[in-house]
Amino acid sequence: MEQQVITNKKVILKDYVVGFPKESDMILKTSETITLKLPEGSNGLLVKNLYLSCDPYMRGRMTKTEGSYVESFTPGSPLTGYGVAKVLESGHANFKKGDLIWGFTGWEEYSIINAEGLFKIEHTDVPLSYYTGILGMPGMTAYIGFYDICAPKKGEYVFVSAASGAVGQLVGQFAKLSGCYVVGSAGTKEKVDLLKNKFGFDEAFNYKEEQDLDAALKRYFPEGIDIYFENVGGKMLDAVLLNMRLNGRISVCGMISQYNLEQGEGVRNLFTLITKRVRMQGFIVFDHYHKYPKYLEMIIPLIKNGAINYIEDIVEGLENAPAALIGLYSGKNVGKQVVVVARE
Amino acid sequence: MEQQVITNKKVILKDYVVGFPKESDMILKTSETITLKLPEGSNGLLVKNLYLSCDPYMRGRMTKTEGSYVESFTPGSPLTGYGVAKVLESGHANFKKGDLIWGFTGWEEYSIINAEGLFKIEHTDVPLSYYTGILGMPGMTAYIGFYDICAPKKGEYVFVSAASGAVGQLVGQFAKLSGCYVVGSAGTKEKVDLLKNKFGFDEAFNYKEEQDLDAALKRYFPEGIDIYFENVGGKMLDAVLLNMRLNGRISVCGMISQYNLEQGEGVRNLFTLITKRVRMQGFIVFDHYHKYPKYLEMIIPLIKNGAINYIEDIVEGLENAPAALIGLYSGKNVGKQVVVVARE
Repeated sequence: MEQQVITNKKVILKDYVVGFPKESDMILKTSETITLKLPEGSNGLLVKNLYLSCDPYMRGRMTKTEGSYVESFTPGSPLTGYGVAKVLESGHANFKKGDLIWGFTGWEEYSIINAEGLFKIEHTDVPLSYYTGILGMPGMTAYIGFYDICAPKKGEYVFVSAASGAVGQLVGQFAKLSGCYVVGSAGTKEKVDLLKNKFGFDEAFNYKEEQDLDAALKRYFPEGIDIYFENVGGKMLDAVLLNMRLNGRISVCGMISQYNLEQGEGVRNLFTLITKRVRMQGFIVFDHYHKYPKYLEMIIPLIKNGAINYIEDIVEGLENAPAALIGLYSGKNVGKQVVVVARE
Repeated sequence: MEQQVITNKKVILKDYVVGFPKESDMILKTSETITLKLPEGSNGLLVKNLYLSCDPYMRGRMTKTEGSYVESFTPGSPLTGYGVAKVLESGHANFKKGDLIWGFTGWEEYSIINAEGLFKIEHTDVPLSYYTGILGMPGMTAYIGFYDICAPKKGEYVFVSAASGAVGQLVGQFAKLSGCYVVGSAGTKEKVDLLKNKFGFDEAFNYKEEQDLDAALKRYFPEGIDIYFENVGGKMLDAVLLNMRLNGRISVCGMISQYNLEQGEGVRNLFTLITKRVRMQGFIVFDHYHKYPKYLEMIIPLIKNGAINYIEDIVEGLENAPAALIGLYSGKNVGKQVVVVARE
């Protein structure tokens, strides 16, 4: 086999981060020339990374934690995360050269990765980048978090925060497909417009323009909220609790407003869990990947027939990855944040 | 029918209460002489009250609220609450003179009450006062909140706060009957001793003696907590969240530490709902009374064969009811707080 000699560009985490992460917490490095080759006896894969996914949960991995649900990043090494890649060389029976995969890979041009937990991409008549979003982890998160955790019923009132994000935009559309009334919150006028005009939310509002979130929710949900898809935590959760209906459900998916705080904001209205008999359920998509084939069966036709829209915020080049990742925490991205490393 | 002329002693709420309630928020009044008689055409019951139940949720009724799950008290009128009473005259086909009932009645010697929602007492070979506790609302609360909401499995780690109270003492014993490891917290040495020596908790601690509740929980639950039966809220809940195990369950029954605060304490550690995939479920026993016959089937034999202990804190006389009720909020009661109005 002919072996290529290359340099490998990488995004390295300099050190663990306290507070709000900055671009300068990461550094772009190019390796010395190396031979592109899987080590002898490896059962992993040598891949060329195509698309990298910027996801809010990655903030937690910039902090040193033990026993968390995902490992911390290793300072001095490239970040890792979800991505779409092409197999250049396979040491694993389930994959072969030329396969396209999605799953955990490195923030670099070429990676040697563990084959366990990877998904082989079968449908290639949709944008490949979708496997970082609607056809990847965020898609499954919306699917499990809405259908399984919230058990929606036709006519119910659904509220989604961070509603134009990688997960939220799907939850809103799933809610409409389920016959629910759905309102989303986001942080700019542009996003609010998207929610109403592109994703079919019944209503949407800019939470930054609301002095009183409780009052805003009462305006959009005079009857109260049956289902809250929680992406932000903090003050929004506290306001939502005051507006839950009897037997309401809160799917706890993320709390992005809290990730850069050294101490979380206090949530004061949990007593309404009792008075309104509310179920609040945290979940992590990792536990549910066995349902991925079932999800694909549902979602692929919806994409192809245009019943579901998906908006991506695509930046070109690994050198722009640190800014893209950090942009998530100030809401700079419009839709799913993707970094293109290479297109094929 | 011979008609008795009596005076009726009552405990009246003077006005809505802000902050910590005081004895002087209530006043004892004796009515003018009246004839003990059900009004013509009433479908209610004229009852003689025997035992009154002091329950933490009553604090909420001292505040003016609308649309809550129970009505506020009416200033100038007697408090109402759970009690055991004897029917003197019945306007309802389901009850007759001489019947013993439990359910909502007035804080007074004689009441005319609505027959809806009352339970006729069939088992009288147990203490009648038990129908304010183990055989009444708190018993059903422990039963539903532990078995239905927490779905305990043998070998799981269970934590109960306010563990010597009307509900907590039962939850601990149900946990032991289910083969769980159970630890309780309470606010005095006497209560801690009761938990270990009378109710069979594996361990117990005085939360007032712990500087660091997180550290205390880590000491008692080195493996973490599978099930938390939440009676107190606030700081304890926050510490528990840091110690939940994967797929843990929190049954949200009450938050007594918060009832006298104008604004609830902030709970900062809700993110662990996600990382540990925790289900937090509020409930109210009212929704579950249809399971009362099934509960009785389980609990009556356990009482009779001594497999379950139940401790009551009984005060004599309606004049001592205000202090007894207020004592709940400083943890003065040891076990279920009952007021004897009359013994038969």
